[in-house]
Amino acid sequence: MCRFVAYIGPPILADDLLYKPKFSLVTAQSLNAGEMSVTVNGDGFGIGWYAPQLDNEPCVFRSIKPAWSDGNLRNLARKISSPCVFAHVRAASPGLTVEEVNSHPFACGQLMFMHNGVLGGYKQIRRRLLRHLNDIAYDAIQGSTDSEHMFGLFLNHVKDPHGHVTCEEMVYAMGKMFEDLSTLLTEAEVRAHSYLNLAVTNGTSLIVVRYTTNPNVQPASLYYMHGREYHCRGEACMMEPTYGKPSAIVVASEPFTARRSDWMKVERNSMMVVDETMRIHFHHVQMDIEKLDFESIVTELG
Amino acid sequence: MCRFVAYIGPPILADDLLYKPKFSLVTAQSLNAGEMSVTVNGDGFGIGWYAPQLDNEPCVFRSIKPAWSDGNLRNLARKISSPCVFAHVRAASPGLTVEEVNSHPFACGQLMFMHNGVLGGYKQIRRRLLRHLNDIAYDAIQGSTDSEHMFGLFLNHVKDPHGHVTCEEMVYAMGKMFEDLSTLLTEAEVRAHSYLNLAVTNGTSLIVVRYTTNPNVQPASLYYMHGREYHCRGEACMMEPTYGKPSAIVVASEPFTARRSDWMKVERNSMMVVDETMRIHFHHVQMDIEKLDFESIVTELG
Amino acid sequence: MCRFVAYIGPPILADDLLYKPKFSLVTAQSLNAGEMSVTVNGDGFGIGWYAPQLDNEPCVFRSIKPAWSDGNLRNLARKISSPCVFAHVRAASPGLTVEEVNSHPFACGQLMFMHNGVLGGYKQIRRRLLRHLNDIAYDAIQGSTDSEHMFGLFLNHVKDPHGHVTCEEMVYAMGKMFEDLSTLLTEAEVRAHSYLNLAVTNGTSLIVVRYTTNPNVQPASLYYMHGREYHCRGEACMMEPTYGKPSAIVVASEPFTARRSDWMKVERNSMMVVDETMRIHFHHVQMDIEKLDFESIVTELG
Amino acid sequence: MCRFVAYIGPPILADDLLYKPKFSLVTAQSLNAGEMSVTVNGDGFGIGWYAPQLDNEPCVFRSIKPAWSDGNLRNLARKISSPCVFAHVRAASPGLTVEEVNSHPFACGQLMFMHNGVLGGYKQIRRRLLRHLNDIAYDAIQGSTDSEHMFGLFLNHVKDPHGHVTCEEMVYAMGKMFEDLSTLLTEAEVRAHSYLNLAVTNGTSLIVVRYTTNPNVQPASLYYMHGREYHCRGEACMMEPTYGKPSAIVVASEPFTARRSDWMKVERNSMMVVDETMRIHFHHVQMDIEKLDFESIVTELG
Repeated sequence: MCRFVAYIGPPILADDLLYKPKFSLVTAQSLNAGEMSVTVNGDGFGIGWYAPQLDNEPCVFRSIKPAWSDGNLRNLARKISSPCVFAHVRAASPGLTVEEVNSHPFACGQLMFMHNGVLGGYKQIRRRLLRHLNDIAYDAIQGSTDSEHMFGLFLNHVKDPHGHVTCEEMVYAMGKMFEDLSTLLTEAEVRAHSYLNLAVTNGTSLIVVRYTTNPNVQPASLYYMHGREYHCRGEACMMEPTYGKPSAIVVASEPFTARRSDWMKVERNSMMVVDETMRIHFHHVQMDIEKLDFESIVTELG
Repeated sequence: MCRFVAYIGPPILADDLLYKPKFSLVTAQSLNAGEMSVTVNGDGFGIGWYAPQLDNEPCVFRSIKPAWSDGNLRNLARKISSPCVFAHVRAASPGLTVEEVNSHPFACGQLMFMHNGVLGGYKQIRRRLLRHLNDIAYDAIQGSTDSEHMFGLFLNHVKDPHGHVTCEEMVYAMGKMFEDLSTLLTEAEVRAHSYLNLAVTNGTSLIVVRYTTNPNVQPASLYYMHGREYHCRGEACMMEPTYGKPSAIVVASEPFTARRSDWMKVERNSMMVVDETMRIHFHHVQMDIEKLDFESIVTELG
Repeated sequence: MCRFVAYIGPPILADDLLYKPKFSLVTAQSLNAGEMSVTVNGDGFGIGWYAPQLDNEPCVFRSIKPAWSDGNLRNLARKISSPCVFAHVRAASPGLTVEEVNSHPFACGQLMFMHNGVLGGYKQIRRRLLRHLNDIAYDAIQGSTDSEHMFGLFLNHVKDPHGHVTCEEMVYAMGKMFEDLSTLLTEAEVRAHSYLNLAVTNGTSLIVVRYTTNPNVQPASLYYMHGREYHCRGEACMMEPTYGKPSAIVVASEPFTARRSDWMKVERNSMMVVDETMRIHFHHVQMDIEKLDFESIVTELG
Repeated sequence: MCRFVAYIGPPILADDLLYKPKFSLVTAQSLNAGEMSVTVNGDGFGIGWYAPQLDNEPCVFRSIKPAWSDGNLRNLARKISSPCVFAHVRAASPGLTVEEVNSHPFACGQLMFMHNGVLGGYKQIRRRLLRHLNDIAYDAIQGSTDSEHMFGLFLNHVKDPHGHVTCEEMVYAMGKMFEDLSTLLTEAEVRAHSYLNLAVTNGTSLIVVRYTTNPNVQPASLYYMHGREYHCRGEACMMEPTYGKPSAIVVASEPFTARRSDWMKVERNSMMVVDETMRIHFHHVQMDIEKLDFESIVTELG
C-alpha cells in the first residue's frame, strides 16, 4: 500500500505539509504508517505542485528512493510554495517494479493523479483496459502500475488532457473510470477485491475517492480537514478554523497533525469534490460488480 | 544508439571482455564510440551471463547509471566467469526513458536479447504489435523500449519461453519476428527506417542480426572474431587462432582488441547463427517493405 | 540500526542465505526486523563474497536502494555460490547520508568488514581518529560512516591490507581497534554509548563482535549456529548438525530459520573467532572507558 | 572535467538558462562539450538557486545521473524562477566516485560553490588540508572531491558560514584559499598542475575564478556576458544589451547562445567579482608556487 497527502488552498510551504507535522508523511508515515497492515512505504516517492504564476501545469519530482532519507526532497520542500500540492510515498504491490515512472503522482497536461491501494485482478484486465484507450491516454502511460493504468482510463474520458480541464469534467471522467472498471472486472470475472483511494487535481479543484469493492472490510483510511488556513508555528501544525466556507483543505491517508479531532473521515465508498470556489460535495461511488462471487480471502493490501 | 558485446565459448572472465581490451565496451565505447554518430552511451547498461553449473537461466545485472563509473560492474566483472556473456551500453532513443527495466539485455526464461539501433515507426505500431502477443510474451515486457517489444514478438514464436529453447527454435522465432515487423510496418505505412542489430542466446547457441531497411546506408557496424580461445595476457587481449572449427566467438558493435584485422564484418542484412556445436551459418534477412516509399531523410541513429 | 548475516563453510548459494529462509535478511528483516527498536532497514544494502577459484579478494555489490525490491540482488543471489558471504541491510544513523560508499560491507584488499550499531560520539572523535591512520588505512575510507572509520582503525593495525592477512592478525587488529577507540573516547570525554556488533573476514576465517559500552542494556542481538552443512530443501532452511567439529557457521543479527532453537547467542561483550580450520574461540572484549560518566539517557539505537 | 553556468540578475526561468539555448549546458554541453579534451559530462549534475521571497539559503538539487536524460531536472527547470542560479554537469576525475554528495554545487549556509578542473596533488595534500579546518568547515565537507575540500578551505576563512556573508568576505576567503593552497602544494612539493575554475555566491553577489598553475597552457575556458536582461524568445536566447551598468550577468564554461560575439573571456588567472550592486571588478590571482619544478607532462584535464 501507500500513503498520500493532497492540499489545496492559499500557497503553503511543502515543508509545513510534509516534514514539520508530528506524524508527517515523510518523517513518520513513510517509515511507520499507523493505519496500515504494511507499514513501510519505502519504494519510491513523488511530489507534485503548481506554480500558477508561471503556468498551469504541475511540476512533478519523483524518485525510487525512500522519502525519509532523500536530501533533494528535504531541500525542495523548503522552497516549494504552492496553492496545490500532492505527495505520495509508495509501497509497491508484489510483482510491480520500483522505477521512477512507477512513482506517483502521475501527470498529464494540467492533471495530476495518485492512488493508494490495489486494483484487484489488474493483470487479468490490463490488456483489455489498454485496448479501450485513445492514443493520448495510451501514450500518457509510461510505467506498469495498476494506478497509472486507471489514470489512463480516467484520461480516456477527458476531452483534451493537454488543454484546460474543468472540475465537472474531472468528476465525469472519474465516474466513467469506475464504470469502465466495473465492466472490465465483470467481463474478466475477477474475484480479487479492489482498494481504490484516489486523488486527482487540475491545480484549482480536487477530487478524492475512498473506495473498496470489499463489503466486509473498511476501505483504506482517508481523512480531511478544512478551514481558513493551514500553518505551522514552530512545531505545531494546524488548520485555522473558519465559520464560513473553507479556503484551505488537506486530505491525507492518515491524520498527521497533533490534534486528531481536526480530522474527519472521508466516508466509505464516496467521492469528495472540492471545486474551484472551495465548495465541497460528496458523491456515492458504486461499481456494478457486487453480484460477482468474490474470493473469501481478502486481498492483501499491498 | 548503443553498443554491445556477445561471447560464447569456454568460460572467460567478464573483465577480459569488458575492461581489459584497449577499446573495451566499458572503458572506451561507453564514453566515446568510434563508429557511431552519437558517441556517448551513458543511459544505463546491462550485463547478462550463464552459470551452467547452477542452472540454465541467465543472471542479468542492469543499471540506469553510465557503465564507465559503476563500481559494482567493475567488481562483478572480476568475478563473473562464464561460457556465455552479453553486455550492453545504452544511448536511449529520444522519448524513451532511462529506467532499469529499459536497460538491455532483456531476459525471459533461458533466453537473453539485446538490440542496438532503432525500430522506425515504433510509436505507430506499438499497440498493434502488443495485440499480437500471447500472454506469456506480453507479460515478459516490463519496460517501454522498442527493443523489448521486438523481444516480445520474438517470444511470441517460441513454444515455451520458460522451458528449453533450441537453436532452431530461436532461428525460427527470429525469422517470424521479422515477418511480423514487416507486416506491422507495412500496415501502418511507416516511412521511417529501422536499424536492427540484434543478439539473442539460450546460453549454448547464439544468433546475431545486422540489418537496416534503409538501402542507402550501411546498417550499424557489427563485427565478430572466432578461434580457439579468447584471452588477455596483461594488457594484450586477443583471440587465439585455430585451423579447425572455432570453439570461441566474440561479436561486438566495434572491434575492441588492438589487432583490428582479427575482426570480420557481419554482412549487411544478414543473420549469423552459432549453434551449440559452434558451427556458424549465415542467413539473409529481408523484410517485404521495400516497396514502401521511405522518407528521404535518414532516421537519426538514436 | 542495521541487520547483517555472515557465512563461512562449504560453498552455498546466496539465495539460500538471503531469500529462502522464513525470516530472511532480505525478505523479512529488511522490512520488519523483529529484535530492533527501529524496524526498517531500507537505507541501502550490500553483499560481499569470495570466489576462491578466481582470486582471494571479495566481490562487493552495494546499493542505496532498499534490498527488498532490488531486482539485481534477487538475480545475483541465485548465481552467487561461495564459501564466505557477508550481507547487510542498512538503517542509516541520523545525520549520515545514504550513498553507495556508505553501504556495508566495506572491503580493502582481502578483507571485508561490516557493522550494526552506532559509535557514540563519532562526530567528536572523527578528526582525531583520522589523524591516527597511516595513508593506506586513510585512503581505504571512501564514505562518511562511523562504521567505515572503525574499519580504518582496524586496517591501521594490519601490516599489509593488500597482501595476505591471517586470522591471528585480524584478532590482533580488532583488539587494537578497541584499544584505540577506548583512548579516543576517553580523551574526547564522550558520554554517548556505543553499540558495536561487527564482523570481519579474510575469506577463510571470521571474527564477529557483540559489544556495547552501556552496562544497563543488552548489546544489539547477535546469533550463530554451526554444523556440518547449511542448506534449504524447498522452503525449509536449516543447519545439518554434526557431532564433531563444525564445517559451516552462520552468524546473524536475528535467527532467520524456522527452528529458533538451532541458534545460540553470541555473549555480551565478546568476540567470536572462527579460524581457517573452523575452530571457534571466544574472547572477552573490554574498553577502558567504564570510569567515564556516561549519559543516563541511553543512546537511541539508530 | 566539468562544465558550469552561473547567473545573477533579475529572476529568470532555469529552463531559459539550461535547456532552451542552442548549446545549452544540459542538452548540448553535458553530452558533447566543445572546448574540452574530455567531452562527456555524465557523472552526475546539480542545480542550486535562491528563492529570496522565502529565505536566504540556496536550494540544491543534485543527482548521480547524467543531466541529459533526467526527467526531474527537466520538470524543475520549468518551475524554478530565481535571481541567482548555479548549474553544473560533472565528469568525475579518475579515482573519485560518483555519489550524490560529490555532485556540485556544494552548499553551506547562504553559500554555494562549484568547480571545473582538477586540484593537482589533491591526494598528497588532502590530510594536511583537513587539519587546517575549523570544525564548521570540516563538517561542511560531506563527500570526497578535491572541489569540496577547496570549499572547505574557503569556508575556513568565513567568519560565520551559517550567518550572513558579504561580498567582501567572499573575496577575502577566496584569496586566503589560494594562499592556503599555495602553502599546501609547496610544502608537499606537488608537481602536478592545477586547473581551478571556480564560482561562489551568497545569492546576491558572485565571484568566479579562472586559473591554472600551468604557465604553458590556457586555463579551462570561462566566459561571461552581461546586459540589461537575459531572455529567450522562442528558440532565440540572448542578453539584452545595456549602455549603463549591467543588471544581469551570465558566466559559463562555454558560450551557449547562438551569438558568440556576446561572450567575453574571463582572463587567464583572474578573479571576477560581481557585487550586490552588479558592479564588476577583476583581480589577478597568483599562487606562490611558480618556483616549484612542475612536471613537464601536462596534467590531463579530468
